[in-house]
Amino acid sequence: MKATQYQGNQTFSVIEKEIEAPKNDEVRIKVAYVGVCGTDVHIYHGMMDKRVQIPVTIGHEMSGVIDAIGSDVTNFSIGEKVVVRPLDDRKAKPSDKGFNHVCEELKFIGIDSPGAMQQYWNVPAFTLHKLKVTTDLKLAALIEPLSVAAHDVRLSELKKGETAVVLGGGPIGLLVAMVAKEVGAQVIISEVNPKRIQKAKDLGFDAVSPIDIDLVQYVSDKTEGRKADVVFEVAGVQPALDMMCEIAGIRGRIVMVAIHGEKKPVDLFKFFWKELKLIGARVYEKEDYEKAIDLITTNELPFTDMITDVQPLSNIQQVFENIDNNPDGLKVLMDCQL
Amino acid sequence: MKATQYQGNQTFSVIEKEIEAPKNDEVRIKVAYVGVCGTDVHIYHGMMDKRVQIPVTIGHEMSGVIDAIGSDVTNFSIGEKVVVRPLDDRKAKPSDKGFNHVCEELKFIGIDSPGAMQQYWNVPAFTLHKLKVTTDLKLAALIEPLSVAAHDVRLSELKKGETAVVLGGGPIGLLVAMVAKEVGAQVIISEVNPKRIQKAKDLGFDAVSPIDIDLVQYVSDKTEGRKADVVFEVAGVQPALDMMCEIAGIRGRIVMVAIHGEKKPVDLFKFFWKELKLIGARVYEKEDYEKAIDLITTNELPFTDMITDVQPLSNIQQVFENIDNNPDGLKVLMDCQL
Ligand SMILES: NC(=O)c1ccc[n+]([C@@H]2O[C@H](COP(=O)([O-])OP(=O)(O)OC[C@H]3O[C@@H](n4cnc5c(N)ncnc54)[C@H](O)[C@@H]3O)[C@@H](O)[C@H]2O)c1
Ligand SMILES: NC(=O)c1ccc[n+]([C@@H]2O[C@H](COP(=O)([O-])OP(=O)(O)OC[C@H]3O[C@@H](n4cnc5c(N)ncnc54)[C@H](O)[C@@H]3O)[C@@H](O)[C@H]2O)c1
Ligand SMILES: [Zn+2]
Ligand SMILES: [Zn+2]
Repeated sequence: MKATQYQGNQTFSVIEKEIEAPKNDEVRIKVAYVGVCGTDVHIYHGMMDKRVQIPVTIGHEMSGVIDAIGSDVTNFSIGEKVVVRPLDDRKAKPSDKGFNHVCEELKFIGIDSPGAMQQYWNVPAFTLHKLKVTTDLKLAALIEPLSVAAHDVRLSELKKGETAVVLGGGPIGLLVAMVAKEVGAQVIISEVNPKRIQKAKDLGFDAVSPIDIDLVQYVSDKTEGRKADVVFEVAGVQPALDMMCEIAGIRGRIVMVAIHGEKKPVDLFKFFWKELKLIGARVYEKEDYEKAIDLITTNELPFTDMITDVQPLSNIQQVFENIDNNPDGLKVLMDCQL
Repeated sequence: MKATQYQGNQTFSVIEKEIEAPKNDEVRIKVAYVGVCGTDVHIYHGMMDKRVQIPVTIGHEMSGVIDAIGSDVTNFSIGEKVVVRPLDDRKAKPSDKGFNHVCEELKFIGIDSPGAMQQYWNVPAFTLHKLKVTTDLKLAALIEPLSVAAHDVRLSELKKGETAVVLGGGPIGLLVAMVAKEVGAQVIISEVNPKRIQKAKDLGFDAVSPIDIDLVQYVSDKTEGRKADVVFEVAGVQPALDMMCEIAGIRGRIVMVAIHGEKKPVDLFKFFWKELKLIGARVYEKEDYEKAIDLITTNELPFTDMITDVQPLSNIQQVFENIDNNPDGLKVLMDCQL
């Protein structure tokens, strides 16, 4: 079988290796598609060389079909379509209070252990979620990032009729916007990249640039002065941190989806004054995966348009080089059987 | 009657003036005691000269007895003990979503309009909460700051058996600690002033200095590694902002009670990583006042020890000068009939 390996130094190789039998508690998945995540790009850029074990097969946004089953695994059969929830929480402790998806000793499969960018992948059975026979495997590669969005929206407690502003119209921001719209909220996307603004508009969203317009006024006008009930910070930049406190209305909830590597100035006075809430959100829980699977299976949101390219797995080096040269693209999938 | 007036330039005067009849929608209160708040000290220092209308009578932490009643006022009678909830929300709008205590056009009585540091005080009847005949009027002057604490603890959703860490053992921090203890939580107070640490200990609290000990380790040891379920930031300094993110456990809730005038660096990565929540909290709602009135009336918490001095109203200048020279004192009351 073919497997890709990140070798360090912005280099991937494609190697031939033996297909392995799954361990007792594992299944072997014939991987269909793997999406390239921002984290994968970070790894490619060497920014996580301390964390990953080079050479390493990465990838965690995948879909596939069960190909072999370990002796202790029940409830799964060969030929079933599945996705992996790539959280290894086997070291969760009582002090994690049951929040195993963010437990202190969490290992992220595809970063801390081998990932999906190969033809066959052995994973512990507890990571699996079954798809329907009708679920499209290409779209199913979006389930992992869509689960992030489902988690963010669930934690925000966004309700029908409320207004949500999404700061950042990248892949995650757009998926958050879709889930928020599905809840029945009014959704406004703020994005600075003109191509991504256009893309968001094509997807049916009210998308604006905070450079071109006064976003605070815009949101205020669209809400009869209430401003945003919920803000999703999915841009990861200081201007978005400043904006989030401005556009949130009284008792507004701000979901921190973006990952800020350093301490950043925050307007805590506004948190006090308007009784704002900041809600940290990381990955997903089981129910978010089930929600995302439902959404992908019924396919009533414009998921197809999120996939801007599909490339053979063996082109991996080129795929990562292209992503660097095309910041407008959204989700690139790799077809792991090609 | 005697009334005090802040004249600007760190100066109070005590003037003689006519007792006025209450307007139709007002009552006249014979003021018993007024507590000096940190905000009053700010005003004295000239830091709010732009907001207050000099010369102005300040003061909002009070207790008293109804002395006269406006023609349109029902439900109140002369001789009843009352406290004022000093929030004038008459300009609340639909866009405030019913959160009138933090409405955009809120006026704070005693800052934006005349306050309680006088013998008789006319206030709109809607601001009143009745006390019991048995409520002690001296302790009742603590109801306003205690309502702040009740509000903070309510918004934190602190539960029995959880651990709360209070950063800052000033008057507000100690009251927060009392309300948290009353909920049935384990409470740890972090304070840097040795006299205030001693005071907190005298009040029965587990109080430590983050300078002398490793607070993160201390909290971890006291919670079997869970760390704090709830953190109250009541210190208002950068080290407390850094500490709050460290000592909060997974899904910990951090209540921002302190007022930070400028943007300050916050460890947003920890918000993401541990799925922390930051909850802005400002003043109080009706139910917080009722809770505080109950607590003061039953008097099972060490409220009496919070009052470190009682002075005649006519000593106001000296009272404010003394507060500056004695940062260890907690609550100073003025007896408005002396
Ligand atoms: N919480 C989680 O578990 C989780 C999971 C996945 C990704 N993330 C994080 O979510 C964030 C978004 O991920 P992504 O893959 O969509 O990233 P991305 O970089 O593709 O998207 C960010 C977008 O924000 C836009 N932007 C920049 N400045 C802006 C501004 N001032 N106002 C509005 N938009 C602005 C950029 O043009 C870009 O399109 C990243 O920080 C990522 O690390 C978090
Ligand atoms: N949210 C509201 O509605 C509301 C209402 C009243 C007061 N407040 C605010 O609450 C805060 C506290 O009020 P207060 O009257 O008790 O003030 P205070 O200044 O008397 O108390 C703050 C305490 O924090 C201590 N401290 C300083 N550095 C510390 C550190 N690194 N770690 C731990 N403790 C430290 C100080 O020694 C002091 O005792 C202020 O910021 C005030 O403006 C807010
Ligand atoms: Zn991902
Ligand atoms: Zn006060």
